[in-house]
Amino acid sequence: VNLGFLSGTGIEGRGLALRFGSAGVPVVIGSRSEERARTAAASCNELLGTEAVSGCSNTEMLGRCPIVFLTVPFANGVDAVEACRPDLRPDHILVDVTVPMRFAGGRPEFVELEAGSSAEEIARHVPEGVAVVGAFKTIPAHVLAEVGTELRCDVFVCGDRESAREEVIRAVGAIPHLRALDAGPLVMARALERMTWLAVSLNRRYKRKGARFAVQGL
Amino acid sequence: VNLGFLSGTGIEGRGLALRFGSAGVPVVIGSRSEERARTAAASCNELLGTEAVSGCSNTEMLGRCPIVFLTVPFANGVDAVEACRPDLRPDHILVDVTVPMRFAGGRPEFVELEAGSSAEEIARHVPEGVAVVGAFKTIPAHVLAEVGTELRCDVFVCGDRESAREEVIRAVGAIPHLRALDAGPLVMARALERMTWLAVSLNRRYKRKGARFAVQGL
Repeated sequence: VNLGFLSGTGIEGRGLALRFGSAGVPVVIGSRSEERARTAAASCNELLGTEAVSGCSNTEMLGRCPIVFLTVPFANGVDAVEACRPDLRPDHILVDVTVPMRFAGGRPEFVELEAGSSAEEIARHVPEGVAVVGAFKTIPAHVLAEVGTELRCDVFVCGDRESAREEVIRAVGAIPHLRALDAGPLVMARALERMTWLAVSLNRRYKRKGARFAVQGL
Repeated sequence: VNLGFLSGTGIEGRGLALRFGSAGVPVVIGSRSEERARTAAASCNELLGTEAVSGCSNTEMLGRCPIVFLTVPFANGVDAVEACRPDLRPDHILVDVTVPMRFAGGRPEFVELEAGSSAEEIARHVPEGVAVVGAFKTIPAHVLAEVGTELRCDVFVCGDRESAREEVIRAVGAIPHLRALDAGPLVMARALERMTWLAVSLNRRYKRKGARFAVQGL
């Protein structure tokens, strides 16, 4: 199954594309600009020495991919979903990886949303039938992009449709040293997004960059 | 330095008392009932084969201990603090370990508080000068109580007074296989308390009991 990356030319999209691509999963980077998508795909393929990654317009990507990662900064999430509404079908799974944070004077601040979480806000904007799943929220994009670094952590997958969570968990299974955990309903994104806020704060305090979580005792 | 446990005869208080006591730290279990406190202390000492744990009234405990853990269920936290206000001094550090959760039809639900977190709510009720620190929120009480189980996880310590966080982190240093991380200001309890909600949800889904967190890459 093809995995798509909506506006996936940034660090988050390329990071995920590299991890899945290096595991042999066919991935499609979409962009509003077909050229930027092709360029991003080519640089991924060069790095991996494969042809696993292709690039095209967001519209074409949505036509080819049943599972689509929303890989835009948090502040652009709703706009990006609204822009591609005509191309979203009821059988699409939209995987939200965004975290509502901003930096105030160098300090990471969590943005409290009326919806409770970024994932729940996104879910309000997709056409009926589209399943929103939250995942990869707690894994730093630049760690994903360093394909030589073993992840050795967990990815938490939440969403209100169980079959959609299961499909995402199955897809994640291709990535080595990464355990996918079923975190339950979409409301659990309220925990996951704040964990990233914690991880970013810890990175800042301890002058590191790759803080991420592993669950013990499970 | 003596560590105190306010109304510490429950599973959370005894679990922490056992961990610190088994590391040779003198701990004092307080209770509204002196007899219950002595009984709980005796059972801890018997289990450990030491005399590290003593029991007395909450008032006496507060007189003997500069660092006091609030080891009551979330729903009783504010009442417990209000009840001991006369005995709280400005140099006390009050360590809140509570998590605002309830179970609805067997499912764990997070209780959204107006203050944002249980720790911030507690902080509104302590006398001026008392430092509130959040810690041990993400470690299951019954795992603490199983002293034979290596913790192998992190404890996240948050609070608005840096020196208080440092004192708690130093105290935690006595417990083996447990890393104390400075999580920053008290507002970070909003992340920590929701992580426990996630851990309890994972326990339920995967039929385990000891889910807890370790940060990788730090």
